[in-house]
Amino acid sequence: MVQTSALTLTLEEFLKLPETEPASEYIDGHIIQKPMPQGEHSAIQTELAPAINSVVKSKQIARAFSELRCTFGGRSIVPDIAVFLWGRIPRQENGGVANVFALAPDWTIEILSPDQSQTKVTKNLFHCLEHGTQMGWLIDPQEQSVFAYLPEQPTMLCDEPHALLPVPEFARDFSLTVADLFSWLLE
Amino acid sequence: MVQTSALTLTLEEFLKLPETEPASEYIDGHIIQKPMPQGEHSAIQTELAPAINSVVKSKQIARAFSELRCTFGGRSIVPDIAVFLWGRIPRQENGGVANVFALAPDWTIEILSPDQSQTKVTKNLFHCLEHGTQMGWLIDPQEQSVFAYLPEQPTMLCDEPHALLPVPEFARDFSLTVADLFSWLLE
Repeated sequence: MVQTSALTLTLEEFLKLPETEPASEYIDGHIIQKPMPQGEHSAIQTELAPAINSVVKSKQIARAFSELRCTFGGRSIVPDIAVFLWGRIPRQENGGVANVFALAPDWTIEILSPDQSQTKVTKNLFHCLEHGTQMGWLIDPQEQSVFAYLPEQPTMLCDEPHALLPVPEFARDFSLTVADLFSWLLE
Repeated sequence: MVQTSALTLTLEEFLKLPETEPASEYIDGHIIQKPMPQGEHSAIQTELAPAINSVVKSKQIARAFSELRCTFGGRSIVPDIAVFLWGRIPRQENGGVANVFALAPDWTIEILSPDQSQTKVTKNLFHCLEHGTQMGWLIDPQEQSVFAYLPEQPTMLCDEPHALLPVPEFARDFSLTVADLFSWLLE
């Protein structure tokens, strides 16, 4: 992440700014632009979101969104993948998905990019957990490892290839091993 | 950390190799050399170890060691600071400190270097916790943050300047805030 401004804006002022590419996040009064996505990040993001949806969206249990701005608890963040329980997805009057998501995801997934501050990303996971998120994944493609953060519980380290990754209860039918996850890098 | 060899050695073979500078660690059959220490890392390491010792060593409760090789559970690691309870410090027949520490520290402290894999460092903390270490600190100078890992408990994030850093019970008289810790970078 690159800190692009030392100027402190309010959250309201930040939200009025035009979107950037890659997206910018608003954290503790600072605007921090996400890194330009690269191959490993993109491959995992592109495969994982539909893999989750194939299990939870078809049953209207939940839905995974890539690069969705979520604004809550004084921050505006853009998780790589944010999964929301079906009933918590904000809707327009016509029933369509709303544009503004002013709530924490139920499951948040971050994929580490080279040179990205792992501490900054982890802090976003902590922020989500403090606001009701059931689980946060931090995927490190270089180390072929996943950290799973749960509220009030020890952090889980998943790096055994055949280990099943922990998932939130609502996604219990979604079954993926560490090897499955990183095999997307080899396709 | 730079992985310097793809050749798989046994732990016994690794321990017969000459020491390197910076030190090399043996993790899952791989030899990984620690990064060359830089200013922030050195400043914190040099101040923190004696600060801990000024509280725990004078009372013969425990003792902090910088850059001490600890070999246990199939790995040989060199924490930036390893703190051992007084009675667990290996001794020679004459009572002096032994050279070989074949046990996990009671408190392990890692200071992140630029370009070092935070996941690799965190995995070393997990390895320690699995072998009896009471607490592991991961200090990120760039983000002025500390993650405290405890067995069977949620990971703690400490980034509020006035927050007291959590310490193991045996070091309860050692009192340090986040701001105190990072103020060593400004001296």
